[in-house]
Amino acid sequence: MKTIRVAIIGASGYTALESIRWLLRHPAARITYLASRQQAQPIAALFPELLGRLPLPVSPFDPAAIAAAAEVALVCLPHVAAMEHVPRLLEAEVRVIDLSADYRLLDPACYEKWYKHKHADAGNLARAVYGLPEFFAAEIKTAALVSNPGCYPTAAALAVGPLLVDQVVEPVDIIINAASGISGAGRNPVPQHHFPERNEAFEPYAIGTHRHAPEIEQTLTRLAGTPVRLLFVPHLLPIDRGILETIYLRPRAGQTAADALQALTRHYAGKPFVRIRESQLPSTKYVMNTNFADLAVRLYNGWLVVTAAIDNMVKGASGQAIQNMNLMCGQDETAGLR
Amino acid sequence: MKTIRVAIIGASGYTALESIRWLLRHPAARITYLASRQQAQPIAALFPELLGRLPLPVSPFDPAAIAAAAEVALVCLPHVAAMEHVPRLLEAEVRVIDLSADYRLLDPACYEKWYKHKHADAGNLARAVYGLPEFFAAEIKTAALVSNPGCYPTAAALAVGPLLVDQVVEPVDIIINAASGISGAGRNPVPQHHFPERNEAFEPYAIGTHRHAPEIEQTLTRLAGTPVRLLFVPHLLPIDRGILETIYLRPRAGQTAADALQALTRHYAGKPFVRIRESQLPSTKYVMNTNFADLAVRLYNGWLVVTAAIDNMVKGASGQAIQNMNLMCGQDETAGLR
Amino acid sequence: MKTIRVAIIGASGYTALESIRWLLRHPAARITYLASRQQAQPIAALFPELLGRLPLPVSPFDPAAIAAAAEVALVCLPHVAAMEHVPRLLEAEVRVIDLSADYRLLDPACYEKWYKHKHADAGNLARAVYGLPEFFAAEIKTAALVSNPGCYPTAAALAVGPLLVDQVVEPVDIIINAASGISGAGRNPVPQHHFPERNEAFEPYAIGTHRHAPEIEQTLTRLAGTPVRLLFVPHLLPIDRGILETIYLRPRAGQTAADALQALTRHYAGKPFVRIRESQLPSTKYVMNTNFADLAVRLYNGWLVVTAAIDNMVKGASGQAIQNMNLMCGQDETAGLR
Amino acid sequence: MKTIRVAIIGASGYTALESIRWLLRHPAARITYLASRQQAQPIAALFPELLGRLPLPVSPFDPAAIAAAAEVALVCLPHVAAMEHVPRLLEAEVRVIDLSADYRLLDPACYEKWYKHKHADAGNLARAVYGLPEFFAAEIKTAALVSNPGCYPTAAALAVGPLLVDQVVEPVDIIINAASGISGAGRNPVPQHHFPERNEAFEPYAIGTHRHAPEIEQTLTRLAGTPVRLLFVPHLLPIDRGILETIYLRPRAGQTAADALQALTRHYAGKPFVRIRESQLPSTKYVMNTNFADLAVRLYNGWLVVTAAIDNMVKGASGQAIQNMNLMCGQDETAGLR
Repeated sequence: MKTIRVAIIGASGYTALESIRWLLRHPAARITYLASRQQAQPIAALFPELLGRLPLPVSPFDPAAIAAAAEVALVCLPHVAAMEHVPRLLEAEVRVIDLSADYRLLDPACYEKWYKHKHADAGNLARAVYGLPEFFAAEIKTAALVSNPGCYPTAAALAVGPLLVDQVVEPVDIIINAASGISGAGRNPVPQHHFPERNEAFEPYAIGTHRHAPEIEQTLTRLAGTPVRLLFVPHLLPIDRGILETIYLRPRAGQTAADALQALTRHYAGKPFVRIRESQLPSTKYVMNTNFADLAVRLYNGWLVVTAAIDNMVKGASGQAIQNMNLMCGQDETAGLR
Repeated sequence: MKTIRVAIIGASGYTALESIRWLLRHPAARITYLASRQQAQPIAALFPELLGRLPLPVSPFDPAAIAAAAEVALVCLPHVAAMEHVPRLLEAEVRVIDLSADYRLLDPACYEKWYKHKHADAGNLARAVYGLPEFFAAEIKTAALVSNPGCYPTAAALAVGPLLVDQVVEPVDIIINAASGISGAGRNPVPQHHFPERNEAFEPYAIGTHRHAPEIEQTLTRLAGTPVRLLFVPHLLPIDRGILETIYLRPRAGQTAADALQALTRHYAGKPFVRIRESQLPSTKYVMNTNFADLAVRLYNGWLVVTAAIDNMVKGASGQAIQNMNLMCGQDETAGLR
Repeated sequence: MKTIRVAIIGASGYTALESIRWLLRHPAARITYLASRQQAQPIAALFPELLGRLPLPVSPFDPAAIAAAAEVALVCLPHVAAMEHVPRLLEAEVRVIDLSADYRLLDPACYEKWYKHKHADAGNLARAVYGLPEFFAAEIKTAALVSNPGCYPTAAALAVGPLLVDQVVEPVDIIINAASGISGAGRNPVPQHHFPERNEAFEPYAIGTHRHAPEIEQTLTRLAGTPVRLLFVPHLLPIDRGILETIYLRPRAGQTAADALQALTRHYAGKPFVRIRESQLPSTKYVMNTNFADLAVRLYNGWLVVTAAIDNMVKGASGQAIQNMNLMCGQDETAGLR
Repeated sequence: MKTIRVAIIGASGYTALESIRWLLRHPAARITYLASRQQAQPIAALFPELLGRLPLPVSPFDPAAIAAAAEVALVCLPHVAAMEHVPRLLEAEVRVIDLSADYRLLDPACYEKWYKHKHADAGNLARAVYGLPEFFAAEIKTAALVSNPGCYPTAAALAVGPLLVDQVVEPVDIIINAASGISGAGRNPVPQHHFPERNEAFEPYAIGTHRHAPEIEQTLTRLAGTPVRLLFVPHLLPIDRGILETIYLRPRAGQTAADALQALTRHYAGKPFVRIRESQLPSTKYVMNTNFADLAVRLYNGWLVVTAAIDNMVKGASGQAIQNMNLMCGQDETAGLR
């Protein structure tokens, strides 16, 4: 089994840490390069839990050196920074999985509207593949640049996608009530995520203004083959990791809960990381520290209620990135992710 | 100021503890009787935090003794047990605030359907007043028996009630996405609320089967003056206390977010425990350990999103009970609850 | 009952919020002035939970205006800032309770060593009274300036003080193993208290270098009448509020657990906020949101183990400040604190 | 690489779940038998997170069938039940790693004193090997029965062992202040671990009466070569998993912090799961979900303070069991545990 040599670009944030954790256990991958502006210190100075686990210096961003060391790079930079670095990696013929939002929205104008920055790399944007393996595995396998989906959009697309594809539900009146653990907000210590502010608190935020809304809309529209109309309302949970989405959908005339269940079951047959629950309901806890997405369906008073749980750091970020990496590099999709 | 002498019936559960906490601070109330089957021990054996704070024995349920000691009783028993004790208190001319579900559903058949017990006290059920002071204060003042609302129904009625009364929203397609802290589930140590099962977990439960759904439907129907059709989906939060409801409503033709805001503002003018938030959104943390209900309104993609937060143990249980007691006993509504 | 008019100086931190919470319930106190550099906004912009509860502007620090409005000020500023403001309040004849560390260490050289700032107000330092009512109530009553004790030192002094006074234990080999909730670290969002760093984590910090060590040593030395030698090791708990100290002491020859219990019981007779537990052990939860200090004693393998729990924001900060205020202003010590 | 076939005996508790989690990732182990009285249902009915991950029925305890399926068994039963099952496994020539306390205390009288049961299998007790690989790897490799250490004793022995062996510290006045997450208390939903009782609470328990005290004493005495005298005081943390011990030791004359550090460094050279921290201090979070034990040393006012962190479910239970299994079966000690 050929070893995949992996570079981590932007090694100081939570998605980098999570990627490192999983890659250290991967039977066929080896981390060969760590790039960060916070260089000249051991990685354990940035992440004490890595003490003694990854004897690799934190180095400057040097595309040639990265290309010499690695065939694939996980780009764990924040948005804007990502699109400044990705082109140089691609030029150096390093394949890229970008965990930022920079290559997710197909339309540069849409990107500019939501992220308040002009897109700086429209050329690569046009050829980026959306890294949701349960739908786009074939494209991912050969991609030079994979755009790893957002955490909320991953759960939403997995929950609703097959129901739109199979025309079980209407493409309008899609209400996505979502809740996420705080790791999803990154490592920057903003006042609202100071421990005493967040602990024992549950609250909505960014109603109608969250940047994952257009990404969800884009993916569901693509899968439905027709424009969808949705409402996305996120909330903050006082936990480290986990996303739960409770999604309200209109069944099309004559469609039942059994039809919905069947659509999900059929679409995810042979997909190792999606589990359909029947008697039990999903919980963030049942998917914590795993790459699974758990789904369940109920029909109640004329609405189809689909619930979906993922770990936002795994299936919602680094686990999915490694799943994409496996596909790109000819590995079993589940390698290192069991 | 005349002192209100209060009996606590069923002194070993969380609503009893919470009632005691607040009553110990009440300027005009005094706890004079504690009844529980777990008698013959000091109350601090049941609740260590009460050590040295309430020098009163835990006594058997003796209506005559209770009537001699108190003019009002907070009944903190579980359902079924409550309706076995309430008639005897009323016969002894003790006014009752019942925190159980036994006197909430007007229709005994509905009670039997949801609680799987035949209602044993239809006579008092017919004269019980629903203890939601923001809507029914006049009736509460003179009631012999007040049925204290459920926690989820309190938040739902406060959030949606004025919008139905003022015909801002349609009475159908009411989706109530709710989440509660674990104290709401009571003190019985069931496996699913064992600390390691619940901590760091978020999950839906009882979709379509929660007993608070018919109570919400009954109250909203009464306020709307027309049958409502709703969907109630509760979730469990890994926190002690707090309810947040995110409610999706259809605005009627021509109705705007401003109309909704105005309806809430007008209805709650002079109501001391309801706060309308404009720039901020509600959080369970902002109402924790208070009797406040916080509300906010947003309009987004054709849906009106109303968010509501209460402390399930205070405005959702014992605080509201004391608010009712104040009204019944001629006190200022806010006495002891600031 | 004469109303106490209170000013809060430094109104944007956690001790200010906690003081406001308690004062809003105080039957004989009224907040009349809020001073902060973060002025020109309603207090609810700083603390959303105060929405509608305190209709008072946030004003600049103006000693004359404060003196006109209030007879007592709770100074909730950080250290160094406190000693820059306190003299001006005292000059304006406002009595001061300072919640910072600036007037706790009697020796300015010791202050400079531990706080890395030269003391700027040695004159008032000399006349400040240490605000631990269980030991120094008489001095507190007439003080112009009360220095409110630190949170860890409050628990330590209450637990060990009587055992040194009564010579139950040796003044050496005092080991104080302490743990605190994160509110004790203040409202500044430092990286180490970012929610995902702190949640589910327990760890020691500042072994031998915590600034409360010299304060504890000073108080215990004063109570023992002889220099003590101690070891103070704090830890961080992933909770909002609460301190638990597990203290290891050498019994003097012939002294038993019963002697220790008797010393505590005798010293705290008539002290309303100290509770001695016998069969149960203290818990942060039993004192949460209260001004109580809970103590218990065990003797085991030659060591006396005293455990003490307080709420660091209440008995460890704002509650104790109000207890001091009550004493200074001729109120019952417990007013507003039950 | 030969596959290790593993049976899990007592498949319904937390140590079973944790063992399964790790074994599913183990490159050379395969779970071939699950025994529990809660049979006749899929394992995912007991542990929803295992849905789709372990297609193996839960079977009755049948030593012959187990011997046919597996060469090694992890016994995850509670104490007393363990010693009823272990002899039958050994008779069937299945090698056993027992995670209960039944084979930890060498002296049956000591077992009876602390566990209130007469020891039922003194013969196997005499030949059981104490499964602490950092000290007893040679014996473990050839053992038929390994007694997996308790969680608190693992941390204590790793922290103090080398300091006693190298005579850096005195064998008396050993104070072990310990704190554990709630998973350590097992899956039985007792009232004191009901979520609302435990959340946001920190408290001591079982001072002088915890069953791990004699186990720690036995191990430290064995390592010291002389009887030790210690004080063990455990506390409960409101977290899922993690143990932190803060241990106070008397340095012998002339011994310094550097000597202590050197003893630890030397002893743990080449030991893959013990990490010595110098500038940082251990945290439960840095070892969470890993098999690492983190140690640090400080000297302060005449006491050596050693802090140790492990994950009680991993290095304190199932991870250590697999580490033992690896040694017993000729695998690399770290297989499946990175």
